[in-house]
Amino acid sequence: MFSILRINTATFETKTEVFNSNVFLLGGRTLSSRMVSREVPATCDPFGKKNKLFFCNGALSGTIVSSSDRLSIGGKSPLTGGIKESNAGGIVGVRMAQQGLRCIALEDAPEADAGWKIVVIGKEQTEFVDGEILAGKGVYEKSELLSDRFGIKAGCITIGPTAEKLLYATGLACSDPHGVCSRYAGRGGLGAVMASKKIIALVILNDGEVKPEFKDQDAFKVGTRKIVQLLKENPVSSQFTKYGTAAMVDICQALKVLPTQNFRHGVMEGAEKINAQSMYDTIKERGGEGQTQHACMHPCAIQCSNVYPDKDGKLLCSPVEYETIALMGSNLCLKDLDTIATLNRIANDAGVDTLDVGAAIGVAMEAGLAEFGDTEAAIALMEEVRDLTPLGRILASGCKIAAKVLGVRHAPHVLGQAIPAYEPRGTKGMAMTYLSSPMGADHTFGFTLRDEEVPTSKEGKVALSKKFQLIGSRMDAMGMCNFVRYSVRDDMMPLLDLVRFRYGVDISEEEFDNIVKETLRIEHQFNTDAGITALDYRFSETFYEEAQPETGEVMDITDEESALARKW
Amino acid sequence: MFSILRINTATFETKTEVFNSNVFLLGGRTLSSRMVSREVPATCDPFGKKNKLFFCNGALSGTIVSSSDRLSIGGKSPLTGGIKESNAGGIVGVRMAQQGLRCIALEDAPEADAGWKIVVIGKEQTEFVDGEILAGKGVYEKSELLSDRFGIKAGCITIGPTAEKLLYATGLACSDPHGVCSRYAGRGGLGAVMASKKIIALVILNDGEVKPEFKDQDAFKVGTRKIVQLLKENPVSSQFTKYGTAAMVDICQALKVLPTQNFRHGVMEGAEKINAQSMYDTIKERGGEGQTQHACMHPCAIQCSNVYPDKDGKLLCSPVEYETIALMGSNLCLKDLDTIATLNRIANDAGVDTLDVGAAIGVAMEAGLAEFGDTEAAIALMEEVRDLTPLGRILASGCKIAAKVLGVRHAPHVLGQAIPAYEPRGTKGMAMTYLSSPMGADHTFGFTLRDEEVPTSKEGKVALSKKFQLIGSRMDAMGMCNFVRYSVRDDMMPLLDLVRFRYGVDISEEEFDNIVKETLRIEHQFNTDAGITALDYRFSETFYEEAQPETGEVMDITDEESALARKW
Repeated sequence: MFSILRINTATFETKTEVFNSNVFLLGGRTLSSRMVSREVPATCDPFGKKNKLFFCNGALSGTIVSSSDRLSIGGKSPLTGGIKESNAGGIVGVRMAQQGLRCIALEDAPEADAGWKIVVIGKEQTEFVDGEILAGKGVYEKSELLSDRFGIKAGCITIGPTAEKLLYATGLACSDPHGVCSRYAGRGGLGAVMASKKIIALVILNDGEVKPEFKDQDAFKVGTRKIVQLLKENPVSSQFTKYGTAAMVDICQALKVLPTQNFRHGVMEGAEKINAQSMYDTIKERGGEGQTQHACMHPCAIQCSNVYPDKDGKLLCSPVEYETIALMGSNLCLKDLDTIATLNRIANDAGVDTLDVGAAIGVAMEAGLAEFGDTEAAIALMEEVRDLTPLGRILASGCKIAAKVLGVRHAPHVLGQAIPAYEPRGTKGMAMTYLSSPMGADHTFGFTLRDEEVPTSKEGKVALSKKFQLIGSRMDAMGMCNFVRYSVRDDMMPLLDLVRFRYGVDISEEEFDNIVKETLRIEHQFNTDAGITALDYRFSETFYEEAQPETGEVMDITDEESALARKW
Repeated sequence: MFSILRINTATFETKTEVFNSNVFLLGGRTLSSRMVSREVPATCDPFGKKNKLFFCNGALSGTIVSSSDRLSIGGKSPLTGGIKESNAGGIVGVRMAQQGLRCIALEDAPEADAGWKIVVIGKEQTEFVDGEILAGKGVYEKSELLSDRFGIKAGCITIGPTAEKLLYATGLACSDPHGVCSRYAGRGGLGAVMASKKIIALVILNDGEVKPEFKDQDAFKVGTRKIVQLLKENPVSSQFTKYGTAAMVDICQALKVLPTQNFRHGVMEGAEKINAQSMYDTIKERGGEGQTQHACMHPCAIQCSNVYPDKDGKLLCSPVEYETIALMGSNLCLKDLDTIATLNRIANDAGVDTLDVGAAIGVAMEAGLAEFGDTEAAIALMEEVRDLTPLGRILASGCKIAAKVLGVRHAPHVLGQAIPAYEPRGTKGMAMTYLSSPMGADHTFGFTLRDEEVPTSKEGKVALSKKFQLIGSRMDAMGMCNFVRYSVRDDMMPLLDLVRFRYGVDISEEEFDNIVKETLRIEHQFNTDAGITALDYRFSETFYEEAQPETGEVMDITDEESALARKW
């Protein structure tokens, strides 16, 4: 039931091991971070033989539980220099489950001049297939080639041309239910880590025959329906059903935390042009392939995703999410959804994270390489990324390196990872979370914004951030979509019951939270062992010295406070 | 006698303070590192208001003692993230002495969009002069404009266009006895630190009237002659008189530590084409402005510098030093002195450190951006640096950042500063020194190579490196040229006597060494406080895993060993 498939990328040897510990039952980040901590030396070169890449599905993967199929990918991050778990929706997790796998490990590394390989995992065997045909191609084309060869229902993970060049802001693209590799584990440069092992794609064939077993199938079915009910009843997740994550634009604009002009401002005049209603209306008006209420995985009762169509109703980009709307939109003073969707599409094709590269383009605009608000210039910069020009490589290295090379002090990142779409001087809760995440600035980790009475005040934010760090991490811990958290934040038993009905293993809320906290301790310890100190968990000095104009706020969180928020 | 001139670059206020402590009597690195440690918060942004730049001359500056006029420049380094002292020859130190100054401090910083200023220090006043006329120009042109305006004998420090853009591998160019800003405090990015304060040049007028005072002038004169005698008698410094530092090419080739092909090899076929004899013969044959045995400061009994002429006998570059010959020559598989001198000239004009950018070009060649050994391609890359193209900016950021952006694992640096011209797997003494310097990999710090019985062995190298760290640091400690160390390594009294004859202050060898050791402790503490840990003092993983072909050696120095070598 709990098998790990170990794949040596230098010798092409493979080995299947069976886990004999319940610690690994939960899968997800619980598993990936423990694997990284146990098997990857913290100080190793992320692109060397000693780093490993772990792909872990969750405890309920392969069942019919809504939103249970996030794939956690773990390794040492080149972007942050610390531990990384990045997760994505799509169909890879379920394909792994159908092959009886809870974890796939890519280990070792061949010489840098070795040829590209595709790893193909099927019920009979694991094969290394020549991957040169994919080299240099965009993710969309790679995706088509993979679908053509391995079937539209194969679970594929591939990388873009930027990752092939070992650039830091590159992700892993996982196939969605339509066979398109559009579901990104975008953060932390794990795309480049896979490239360093000369694996250009990982394919799990749709020939798996392992079916989930249940200790109590009837109870499991009832419990599954309960999750759907909870999701439907919850006002936040149900709002996402209609509008998707773009609903955050108006909220953030109202709270003055909408990243604008390279995180110099928290309000953008004209933000309504890129808000949820605008997006909804545009998609509905254009029709064609456009779609709201779209699911990144099956089954899902939230369906927060979308398909954004061009003027002719043809698919332009799917999905277009709030984080991208902010980082590649307001942060660049762009007020046009078509431009944002175009940037998003090029980013997906190039294989880069939209947040890190959006932030890098913001830095480039501040450096004077283009005007803020210039849609054509923004697209031209993204094309440089896709074309791998020197400037494109700078941008695909993320905003920290871009700021160094372009001479910009106001670099919006923590631990090298770009700040997500909530301007931190205006929300000290989110700021505390950014400073507390072992992964670098991260919006899925400890989302306080909806629960801050006075967002600009740091009062009580250590406790608030920790509360939501735990709530968010519970989802990652077992491979659930982060948006399920709204429905179970006060009562995890509906999910833990499902674990019990499936595996016959009783985990109390307290035991579960102890596992989650232990994961955080393990992750922070890895970072410490990697040479990351308390002094690294800081914003750029400009955030502390220059007030965000709309709120009049500077960053005022001290090292001591953020250290408390990292202590578990 | 010991005055510090504090210059606030934001408010244009200036203030002169008199030191009342003998600790500051030695000047040089003894002073600069103490000032940085006391006044610069270790975690500050090197380009922010809190960083300061200290210019310190040495205890014997302004006297007729040979080789006593190195200028130590200190601050927090953007390149390493730690403390920095970078020193240069030239005439600035003596001009400071003639104005009665032991230290000039540039403090605070104006807004980033403030105009460029020239700080002009004369006997009557310190002025801020509009510096926009210098903006964007090369160092040679800046140098001419400064000479035209302030006289050929003014002591000037300026920066190149790369530093104006806050790039990390940029130095400070100090005027030589001919009024050309060709004497570089090249390492650590202090050029960009001056730029961050919007100071484009610092000028000390030649109107200073302060003359050195002596407790015992006759004894001082005798002592001065003794130093000259020691320098003339010493085989190493006298070898440098004829051949300059290029004498190291043959030595390093023989020891298999000549950096070749991005530090992949330690031997270059055809190295004799760029050795000292070749350089000597070329200079002598071409005649014209060419010159061997040239002095970077007056007086100097070593005169290791040179003027390298082009085919028509016109000055091409002065000086061309061994470190540049290796990093911009053998390291790029270039076997042509004219090409090396051309690269050197462009680097000087652009305002970058030849070591860090030479190493970055090596990385770019390994990334496939040009062929090793291609002279035209190498020059084209340097022209990109001068022209500030995106690729040029990558290269002017030094080899660590270049390696990240260009996807190269074998990045030859420690703490972000490029390894100097001794391949570390072949000389474990130098390797230990690179891992021990608080300044990043540094050849002037603990030069063991001439004293290693078995260079490839790490046996005894902690002690050997520490021995030479002390010997080398003694010179920096009082503003003496590093090459004087050969003559006083077993007996510092000839120099300490001069301090006594001048100031009437008795410093025993033991007391002096305690001051030197305390400087090192202060510097290492600053780095610790800045968040640099023992794990940062490492080479790239490739040096540990891949043997240097000619010696068969990998790096085998452990963290524990290098930590011992940093303990004082």
